[in-house]
Amino acid sequence: MTKKGTLMVVSGPAGVGKGTIVKLACEKAKGNIHLSISATTRNPRPIDKEGVTYYFKTKEEFQSMIEHNEVLEWAEYVGNYYGTPRKPVEEALSKGVDVILEIEVQGAMQIKKNFPGAVLTFVAPPSREELENRLRGRGTETEEQILSRLKTAEGELSRMNEYDYIVVNDQIEQASEDLLTILRAEKLKQKFE
Amino acid sequence: MTKKGTLMVVSGPAGVGKGTIVKLACEKAKGNIHLSISATTRNPRPIDKEGVTYYFKTKEEFQSMIEHNEVLEWAEYVGNYYGTPRKPVEEALSKGVDVILEIEVQGAMQIKKNFPGAVLTFVAPPSREELENRLRGRGTETEEQILSRLKTAEGELSRMNEYDYIVVNDQIEQASEDLLTILRAEKLKQKFE
Repeated sequence: MTKKGTLMVVSGPAGVGKGTIVKLACEKAKGNIHLSISATTRNPRPIDKEGVTYYFKTKEEFQSMIEHNEVLEWAEYVGNYYGTPRKPVEEALSKGVDVILEIEVQGAMQIKKNFPGAVLTFVAPPSREELENRLRGRGTETEEQILSRLKTAEGELSRMNEYDYIVVNDQIEQASEDLLTILRAEKLKQKFE
Repeated sequence: MTKKGTLMVVSGPAGVGKGTIVKLACEKAKGNIHLSISATTRNPRPIDKEGVTYYFKTKEEFQSMIEHNEVLEWAEYVGNYYGTPRKPVEEALSKGVDVILEIEVQGAMQIKKNFPGAVLTFVAPPSREELENRLRGRGTETEEQILSRLKTAEGELSRMNEYDYIVVNDQIEQASEDLLTILRAEKLKQKFE
């Protein structure tokens, strides 16, 4: 009997480095973690690759996915839909593979409600100042965008207490190890579902 | 601010090897785990050392400890008291040191009731046959004692589902690592106590 994989949500403010630590954890886990790829209706950018950064859908396609219960969670941002396709996640879990969803607080709360066995992990910056430094260090945003992201971060950090685990991303090596520790401990936990 | 240590109960049938894996986990943790030493009213055996294997108490002393709320849990076996002195445990926890109590199911349930933040881990054998092999392999018990221990083990295994985590002691190296993984994950968990 294969034990089902763990569904882990990873959220955290823009600039905190969650993408980096998730990627590192997946590399270390050598195929034992499936990183979910979101579907979106936003236009692809030059850097995007279908099925790698996102699955690109038309609004009609996305609405049909919602109607047919083919997304685990979804949300609308600035006129575009973003969501998690259900099938790849459920296939991986049933094979005993852990799944990470890197999603926003709103989606995380939908997962918490629909999957009581899901584990919610919040990646927090060591401090507000450090988050600001990292956002500026990326050099990809205007001053206005940085201030807007910091304001969004305040709101996200205020909902941190709805998560099961907090990983402070002080050093990416340790933080990626922390994600793996949580997944390992979940496998030892008794599940009564 | 020092985060409080985790109180971890480790139970499991005689012969499963819980003493060995707890000892190995403590060695690996290099002083970051305090292994609680029980108090007892039974007579010391030649192998015993005061304050190392047990704290040896008279019945009057033990009863006074119970009355003054100086034991975290206690039980009576074949006319003798066994219990966990409260003070060393609380001192270690307040310094952020994790504490392991290697105690029986009955005591574990008292801890669960009195310390909602405690983590209960059950060490299980890979199979009933393997447990029997290990008991015989110790060569310290008569056939009658072995059968009696196996019967007790059935009762203990039937209460396994009251524990938070199950560590199957297949290989001691992995099993001791599992104990450490649980303690690490607990540090990342949000506590609302």
